[in-house]
Amino acid sequence: MKKENIQSYFESLQDSICSGLESLDGKAQFREDVWTRSEGGGGKTRVIEYGAVFEKGGVNTSAVWGKLPDSMAQKMDVPPSEFFATGISLVLHPLNPMVPTVHMNLRYFELGIGSETETIWFGGGTDLTPYYLFEEDVRHFHTTLKSVCDRHNPDYYRQFKKWCDEYFFIKHRNETRGVGGIFFDYLKGNPDNLFLFVKDIGNTFLAAYVPIVRRRRDEPFGEREKKWQLIRRGRYVEYNLVYDRGTLFGLETNGRAESILMSLPPSVAWEYNYHPEPGSREEVLLNALHPRDWV
Amino acid sequence: MKKENIQSYFESLQDSICSGLESLDGKAQFREDVWTRSEGGGGKTRVIEYGAVFEKGGVNTSAVWGKLPDSMAQKMDVPPSEFFATGISLVLHPLNPMVPTVHMNLRYFELGIGSETETIWFGGGTDLTPYYLFEEDVRHFHTTLKSVCDRHNPDYYRQFKKWCDEYFFIKHRNETRGVGGIFFDYLKGNPDNLFLFVKDIGNTFLAAYVPIVRRRRDEPFGEREKKWQLIRRGRYVEYNLVYDRGTLFGLETNGRAESILMSLPPSVAWEYNYHPEPGSREEVLLNALHPRDWV
Repeated sequence: MKKENIQSYFESLQDSICSGLESLDGKAQFREDVWTRSEGGGGKTRVIEYGAVFEKGGVNTSAVWGKLPDSMAQKMDVPPSEFFATGISLVLHPLNPMVPTVHMNLRYFELGIGSETETIWFGGGTDLTPYYLFEEDVRHFHTTLKSVCDRHNPDYYRQFKKWCDEYFFIKHRNETRGVGGIFFDYLKGNPDNLFLFVKDIGNTFLAAYVPIVRRRRDEPFGEREKKWQLIRRGRYVEYNLVYDRGTLFGLETNGRAESILMSLPPSVAWEYNYHPEPGSREEVLLNALHPRDWV
Repeated sequence: MKKENIQSYFESLQDSICSGLESLDGKAQFREDVWTRSEGGGGKTRVIEYGAVFEKGGVNTSAVWGKLPDSMAQKMDVPPSEFFATGISLVLHPLNPMVPTVHMNLRYFELGIGSETETIWFGGGTDLTPYYLFEEDVRHFHTTLKSVCDRHNPDYYRQFKKWCDEYFFIKHRNETRGVGGIFFDYLKGNPDNLFLFVKDIGNTFLAAYVPIVRRRRDEPFGEREKKWQLIRRGRYVEYNLVYDRGTLFGLETNGRAESILMSLPPSVAWEYNYHPEPGSREEVLLNALHPRDWV
């Protein structure tokens, strides 16, 4: 397994996912910005906006290398060294509040290259953030991910589902960001096997998400549902800007702000102390924002 | 000077500012939530929404005391001790993009009470965040603040204006949050004199801001200007959630999230890689988001 193969896999996955999402949307298309990093590497940012299904979304790949920034070495508690990192990251914000927002990230990291402490690992995951709860959608998402995990390791789903619930937790709201999925980091072992696992997640993404979009894209909604979506999107912003390690790391290390912040929703609202009515569909969603078994 | 006097000054200032803002708005009124802190103290959160002038705004006071939380002692690099803190904090988000957003915060802190290392200090400031640049408005705001500062110390304005520019800086955007004002922290010295200075700022707030609102509240605007306002409000969110020490400290120490986050704008937009047209009024504003002398 060569790192170039991983990078080119992520790039071909970007192509196939963007192509699948464009045909699903039927109206808007992705536009691409290619950027380079002066210290080594670069990326492709692809953004879709004002679509029939997707109000805003981004599918990014990058491959960066060079001397590990001091700030990062300090945070990771490792000596200065050379690194290589490549990954794909996507967030989709649908127009219709009945369609959930989704996030996926897959990444590969090499550290201490050429030294005795050389280590490589994979990280990533995918998680769903609905505005209204359709249990069959959540079950479909989790069941699809469990099938992928089970093909590689019988413990993966249980471990990575739990990690996802813990990672995407908005402490100051005492609620999870959404209904979870899987999350893992520093996954070390046989690199070929791990790469097969990561590819399996990437190749299954559309199968996990697209059927949900098809089921919900034409559900009726009104002002009330749109307002609730905007308020919930505020929680997404709070999570990403206050807690998300990838976002904060990117901003701290002078990453390309527009590529990092493409994950932020297109329109958002904050109303003071908003609480849904007891027994409402909005409250049903809130009650689902605590770890639960979905399979 | 007793700490009770400072707390009751902040509370009477909250009354007079809310009253002044309500008569300015003419439509909406503040509603109040009183909260208590189990470890000692509490506060009054007052929020105005859907007004004729103010789309959303909050004016909060609090007085809290007890054992300094370990996380805070660590951050401040001080030994565990008893603390007392009281303050007023306000943020106003106007409906009309020609009216600037404003923020003010005044606070008093006692640490190591009863020990040899007992220290007390004041902090605070006020700053303006316009969506369109009216130089006479910015000059009025800064000139008013300079007059206050000059009454107490000939160096204050120069020092605190600079501090404000440095503090309200959005690093990942390479721009200031707005056109500044004054900011200071850990201000120690003769407590009676410092209290007079802080009171002078508080008592001058309406005179610094209200004339600007009166001049701009009836300026015409359309969809283009509203969209620009929503995008710029996104920067306000980015600043407050990524950098603002008060916000992050509040969230980390399990403060009341709704009181802390009342500073977030009512409606916000993030469009990928949005840049105003060269020579536009929007670009004029962007060009003003770097430290400049306004007096």
